[in-house]
Amino acid sequence: MLDRRRVWEIVEVARVGDVWSRVFDSFILGLIVLNVAAVIVETVETFCARFGGVLRGLEVFSVAVFTVEYVLRAWSCVEDERYRGPVRGRIRFLLRPMALVDLLAVLPFYLPFWRMDLRSIRVLRMMRIVRVAKVARYYTALRVIRNVFVTQKEELVLTSTVMVMLLVVASSLMYVCENAAQPEVFSSIPATMWWSVATLTTVGYGDLYPVTVTGKMLGSVIAVLGIMMFALPAGILGAGFMEEIQKAKKKRACPHCGETLD
Amino acid sequence: MLDRRRVWEIVEVARVGDVWSRVFDSFILGLIVLNVAAVIVETVETFCARFGGVLRGLEVFSVAVFTVEYVLRAWSCVEDERYRGPVRGRIRFLLRPMALVDLLAVLPFYLPFWRMDLRSIRVLRMMRIVRVAKVARYYTALRVIRNVFVTQKEELVLTSTVMVMLLVVASSLMYVCENAAQPEVFSSIPATMWWSVATLTTVGYGDLYPVTVTGKMLGSVIAVLGIMMFALPAGILGAGFMEEIQKAKKKRACPHCGETLD
Amino acid sequence: MLDRRRVWEIVEVARVGDVWSRVFDSFILGLIVLNVAAVIVETVETFCARFGGVLRGLEVFSVAVFTVEYVLRAWSCVEDERYRGPVRGRIRFLLRPMALVDLLAVLPFYLPFWRMDLRSIRVLRMMRIVRVAKVARYYTALRVIRNVFVTQKEELVLTSTVMVMLLVVASSLMYVCENAAQPEVFSSIPATMWWSVATLTTVGYGDLYPVTVTGKMLGSVIAVLGIMMFALPAGILGAGFMEEIQKAKKKRACPHCGETLD
Amino acid sequence: MLDRRRVWEIVEVARVGDVWSRVFDSFILGLIVLNVAAVIVETVETFCARFGGVLRGLEVFSVAVFTVEYVLRAWSCVEDERYRGPVRGRIRFLLRPMALVDLLAVLPFYLPFWRMDLRSIRVLRMMRIVRVAKVARYYTALRVIRNVFVTQKEELVLTSTVMVMLLVVASSLMYVCENAAQPEVFSSIPATMWWSVATLTTVGYGDLYPVTVTGKMLGSVIAVLGIMMFALPAGILGAGFMEEIQKAKKKRACPHCGETLD
Repeated sequence: MLDRRRVWEIVEVARVGDVWSRVFDSFILGLIVLNVAAVIVETVETFCARFGGVLRGLEVFSVAVFTVEYVLRAWSCVEDERYRGPVRGRIRFLLRPMALVDLLAVLPFYLPFWRMDLRSIRVLRMMRIVRVAKVARYYTALRVIRNVFVTQKEELVLTSTVMVMLLVVASSLMYVCENAAQPEVFSSIPATMWWSVATLTTVGYGDLYPVTVTGKMLGSVIAVLGIMMFALPAGILGAGFMEEIQKAKKKRACPHCGETLD
Repeated sequence: MLDRRRVWEIVEVARVGDVWSRVFDSFILGLIVLNVAAVIVETVETFCARFGGVLRGLEVFSVAVFTVEYVLRAWSCVEDERYRGPVRGRIRFLLRPMALVDLLAVLPFYLPFWRMDLRSIRVLRMMRIVRVAKVARYYTALRVIRNVFVTQKEELVLTSTVMVMLLVVASSLMYVCENAAQPEVFSSIPATMWWSVATLTTVGYGDLYPVTVTGKMLGSVIAVLGIMMFALPAGILGAGFMEEIQKAKKKRACPHCGETLD
Repeated sequence: MLDRRRVWEIVEVARVGDVWSRVFDSFILGLIVLNVAAVIVETVETFCARFGGVLRGLEVFSVAVFTVEYVLRAWSCVEDERYRGPVRGRIRFLLRPMALVDLLAVLPFYLPFWRMDLRSIRVLRMMRIVRVAKVARYYTALRVIRNVFVTQKEELVLTSTVMVMLLVVASSLMYVCENAAQPEVFSSIPATMWWSVATLTTVGYGDLYPVTVTGKMLGSVIAVLGIMMFALPAGILGAGFMEEIQKAKKKRACPHCGETLD
Repeated sequence: MLDRRRVWEIVEVARVGDVWSRVFDSFILGLIVLNVAAVIVETVETFCARFGGVLRGLEVFSVAVFTVEYVLRAWSCVEDERYRGPVRGRIRFLLRPMALVDLLAVLPFYLPFWRMDLRSIRVLRMMRIVRVAKVARYYTALRVIRNVFVTQKEELVLTSTVMVMLLVVASSLMYVCENAAQPEVFSSIPATMWWSVATLTTVGYGDLYPVTVTGKMLGSVIAVLGIMMFALPAGILGAGFMEEIQKAKKKRACPHCGETLD
């Protein structure tokens, strides 16, 4: 019989010194990376034509592994004191974001594809890219990024609001300036917004740009404002990131049990 | 009869605990967002053709509400000790930037459109986008941005001057380099300025670019200088923004009256 | 007769309280701005055709004023103790960068244009843009920028060297990757350098870009490196600028004589 | 006879006061710069046709000098206590990165070109650009950059991972959005990645861009995220660079022997 406590230890992120758990983690991690790579190269026609069989095999194997992993997690989670109780504990566990990601990573495979049109199947197959999110479980450093967003939430909301207002005003003004001269390019404010985003972020594809003198003058002012306003969230994230890293560096993990020491 | 004191309390930004005033604020705020959205989607022809009636109805309703709001404010403002005096106080109130924005937000609707040509009507109708500025009353956090600009005014003026001088010199030099090779594209210094802005801000639309060897060498130097000089105001704003946020975080509002405590 | 001491006081940057000197400064400053504007708009053909006479008049008037200003400076400079001595002192004064700028600002006007071809005349006429540098005398805040470059010289030289090496290596590698596929666009390493600059500075005109798979992979790496390395000088300048501004804010000018107090 | 100790002193980076060693360093440094310049201009056909002989002469001369330099280094390195021992010491010395660079800088010249096809020869000849790395020996300030990368390794790995994940997800989503509308441009996820890199780095060549409404909305979000995430490594490097520079400024070199004092 399977030892439920041991299964839980293995499927969870490995503690320091637990070799089998670590092997399991590395195996799943490797499989995730392989799956993401497969989703990417599958879209290359020449590659798909030659290695279609291999990709299909990998898919079936991966779904099998991920399904078993999902079932084992759901079965053994009650060993964790946070999810005690065979029904309520399990439901609490299965509704966690990471458990939902695990479910979404295998679900599309079991859907009845024969009833769908080709386009939907394609989009559903692409949903396998969600497997990349499974990495988050093993890569604890990603929490740093999440923490930065949480800590700087207020500042990010403020700058985002200003950015949206700037976007609306810039697009409206540019629409008035350019619509008469290029009615097909700057055809509406939403269409002009695409230009505004490309300019404010300084991407500047060059698929649309002002041609009138007033439009160019306005565009210049918008580009300069874009540099100034759109650099703010980058600066805020940067400052928060540095702080978070410094905090993380001060924390130490106990060499015996792997738990974080405060 | 209407209680003037109560009307003033309701039309002003709500204090903590004043439910009706808060409801009124939310209603006006929602109407502003709806109006801005309407201005944007109205320019999409297919949308306008189908929902033109709804948009027209929203416009009439909004102008009615905003007009009543404006009149109520003008009538009740004398309750505030800053605007005492039925004539002088009211004039003082109506000349405040926010009151002017409120006026501009409804004025175009009452203008005699039948005497104007189509183009002017269009521009005037677009002026409704000014309603976005009404948001500023409810979104006090926007003061942070304004404060940053005020505090860093000196630095921004200095860097702006350098940026303008760089723009003038870059455009003049590039004009000398490229005018002979591309007389129609780099036709004059003002035309070349459009290239300079696109390069100095690193937007780079690609609608015009140097083709001669000297032009490309000059363009390279200008692009590098652009990164260095045009990043300065962004850095200044960023630093000022962080400071302002820290200051704002230290301030607390009284839980009883909603006033800021120093 | 002219009072040499008074002339010197007037032509030099005004001290606090000296009204006539201040009027003179404002007049010259206004004339400089007008001249720079004239150089810019003169290149617009339609404008030049209509207002050619006005521009010519402004030019003659400006050269007259700037010549008189130059002569007065050269004549009265011996009043300053740094330039004592009618010959050696004057030579020392006339070799200062600002005095050379003053000379260059009027010299082209006196050159024998009739012996030159049209192209040279054009370039020489454009040299009038050097007048923009005369602004530096009145705008002392520009010293801040110069000081930043001097203080951070070491860091800027270091990052510049790395940038040049990155440019050379990136261009060479990209040339090897793309030359076979696009022999006319990536025709040589210097031609590829134009692409490298546009990519490393993230301007990205789109006039040339890699099309091969290896070229695109290399281009991606170069673009990311570009962001990282080319942001360094901007950061260095920004940090130096903030420091310099803080220093400048601590300095005070005496309200009586206008001299800086340490 | 050659004095091995003196040879070692000369071929190594000069200590303060050693004139001959300094002359040798300057000579090699000049030759490197000349060689890199030669590699660059050689690819310009018109230049190559006219000065091909000079370039060939420079190449033979340089290889001769660099070969002699390499042999002298290998012969005299045993004078250094780190490389004592005629065989093991020399092998240890010759396997150092800088010694390998020296070897790679001359090796292609001695390869049997007559057996190769033209394309390989070209690539091999381009390998001479590796000579630019020889500069690193003389330009100790480059260590600052290397130190920054080493110190900030952890942060750079973290942000790089996030950047790669962002790239994968952005490309997959954009592929789903745009593939139907532009099957030839957004033909596969790897092809879409080229667009993602150009957008996330804000280079924006404009060779491919979304045309559908969902694609443009997604592209806008990706561009904004790009600014925020891709500015992180730049900020990290910048902060590390400033720190490293401050450390370097505190260190002093002994005026007698040229060694760094702690």
